Amino acid sequence: MIEGHGDDLYLYSHPIVSNFSSNVYNGYDHSGLFRHLKNRLSTIHSYPEPAPRTLERLIARKHSLGSPAQVCVTNGATEGIYLIAQTFREKTSAIRMPAFSEYADACRMHNHRIKPFFNPDEAPKETDLIWIGNPNNPTGEVYDRERVRQALRERPECLFVFDHSYEHFTRRPLLSPEEAVQCSNVILIHSMTKQYAIPGLRIGYLTACETLMKKIRACKMPWSVNALAIEAARYLLENEPDSLPDTDKLLEERERFVGLLNGMTELQCLPTDTHYLLIRLHKGTASELKNYLAKNRGILIRDASNFEGLDERFFRIAIQTPPENDRLAEALQAWLYTDISFTPHCTSAP
Amino acid sequence: MIEGHGDDLYLYSHPIVSNFSSNVYNGYDHSGLFRHLKNRLSTIHSYPEPAPRTLERLIARKHSLGSPAQVCVTNGATEGIYLIAQTFREKTSAIRMPAFSEYADACRMHNHRIKPFFNPDEAPKETDLIWIGNPNNPTGEVYDRERVRQALRERPECLFVFDHSYEHFTRRPLLSPEEAVQCSNVILIHSMTKQYAIPGLRIGYLTACETLMKKIRACKMPWSVNALAIEAARYLLENEPDSLPDTDKLLEERERFVGLLNGMTELQCLPTDTHYLLIRLHKGTASELKNYLAKNRGILIRDASNFEGLDERFFRIAIQTPPENDRLAEALQAWLYTDISFTPHCTSAP
Repeated sequence: MIEGHGDDLYLYSHPIVSNFSSNVYNGYDHSGLFRHLKNRLSTIHSYPEPAPRTLERLIARKHSLGSPAQVCVTNGATEGIYLIAQTFREKTSAIRMPAFSEYADACRMHNHRIKPFFNPDEAPKETDLIWIGNPNNPTGEVYDRERVRQALRERPECLFVFDHSYEHFTRRPLLSPEEAVQCSNVILIHSMTKQYAIPGLRIGYLTACETLMKKIRACKMPWSVNALAIEAARYLLENEPDSLPDTDKLLEERERFVGLLNGMTELQCLPTDTHYLLIRLHKGTASELKNYLAKNRGILIRDASNFEGLDERFFRIAIQTPPENDRLAEALQAWLYTDISFTPHCTSAP
Repeated sequence: MIEGHGDDLYLYSHPIVSNFSSNVYNGYDHSGLFRHLKNRLSTIHSYPEPAPRTLERLIARKHSLGSPAQVCVTNGATEGIYLIAQTFREKTSAIRMPAFSEYADACRMHNHRIKPFFNPDEAPKETDLIWIGNPNNPTGEVYDRERVRQALRERPECLFVFDHSYEHFTRRPLLSPEEAVQCSNVILIHSMTKQYAIPGLRIGYLTACETLMKKIRACKMPWSVNALAIEAARYLLENEPDSLPDTDKLLEERERFVGLLNGMTELQCLPTDTHYLLIRLHKGTASELKNYLAKNRGILIRDASNFEGLDERFFRIAIQTPPENDRLAEALQAWLYTDISFTPHCTSAP
């Protein structure tokens, strides 16, 4: 497990007023969910279902799948990633870079041979698994649905793992669970954390054909998802089925924000299809910038230097409200174009 | 993962008024905990610590350990069991029977060679790990602290895993975490589920020397413990440090209940050092009895036939309040000594 993921608010004693570091959307009204959880606190007194079958049925229905056996509810998308790596232990895994570090961490833990690659159309020939974040994290790029379908057909001997954690934050088309369960060589990873903005609860799920799912379930420990996480997911699926982030608005605001940054020659915004984006500094390091912003501006960004395939110059931000985005743009301008970044106070570690 | 653990309340459409099936104590006043969780629901909006270090510090302090690195907080004791099996993959594991089925399930998943044994003083000679529930589940027996210390000294080449999930439900002395971290060949599994009666939250921890813990942590995925579970555990450790089950009262009531059953020659109560006990039927099966009690008396017991080393005649119960225990004794008497158990209605599967 690496240190230094996003959303490391808990490390800062300085008050953080704007958190750009996590890609979790914060525009929901959760008052209904909170009321429901308050009424259901007594569920902590009983064991949850060993495997959350009731929830798997609801999710299968939502995606019009033939059977709940095509769904496996997990302790966040993270348990899904580790389960896949464990199920296919000691295989060769090609990982599209730069990538969420957990794919490689999980594969290393379970003795995979890892082959990094950068262009999704040019995955290594000799591999058992191909892992692609779709949308990718940290770049935000989407690998086209049509190219995905073609790759699945052309390489039936490979198992494709598409991490759809950010599926609700793009307008580009993705392979649907209904299509995925028709194929014998694809697993989709889904994150209720990201869809509903409940990262503290740890809940996600996999969709795949029953044959693959049976292998995966054989590697799963019981009771991995806690009772309140199950309660929250059931409530959201039953009562707020249309609860989705306002993606159009987010993507529009991202365009506006990128416009503000395009005038700054000391950094470069990389292409993205989502509400988050990767930025490369041409001056200083992401770590120095992160410390400056946290200590002097109460702003938290994601130092992206520990992503596989990136270096110390990269940071990632997720779009927030227009006034917050304006404040970040102004702070970046100040840090890049004045000498403030080189005072000892600003460059010390947190 | 086996089907048919205790506390399978969710399977019954009949109202269950007395639940003897789970060993979780239900005598706590959790109003303070509930108030705290209601106030802290907003923690679901942020990621929990990737590893719950803050909580590990509190637990280390509680047990007077030298370092929080000697504590590893897990998603219930279950994650601890699976982590140990994974860390020592493909080794030979001797498991004291009858046993909580997860030890063998976890060991099989991670390709251990399994050697069952029944007398804790006679563990197999050729083994890498020795797993002992202490108190044991489902028998409730305790393996004496002095014999544990002797075994650790005599077999330094073996790794001993003692599951202390029920440590607060016996008056017999056990190896303490402070003693365990001084040894290079023992891991203790602890369950906050059992201590504080919060099985829905999934929280437990391991204690062991730093060398062992480092190996175990290398196999752990991040964020496995959810934010509300961490909040609950912190609250309980900080505000209700002396919150323990009333073990003396439970053990006294168990004595009284066993006295009621000793008159029934069609069953046998096995020896126990805890508030729960294993009972062997000399007539009918545990499954038939379970169905009868659930459907006709609203009483849930634990069919113990799926425990490694037991058969269809065994069931387990955990002591409840005196009136509930009286009702169970009366229902057992009726089932054993009248013909009601052989009506079709009572023997059909749920």
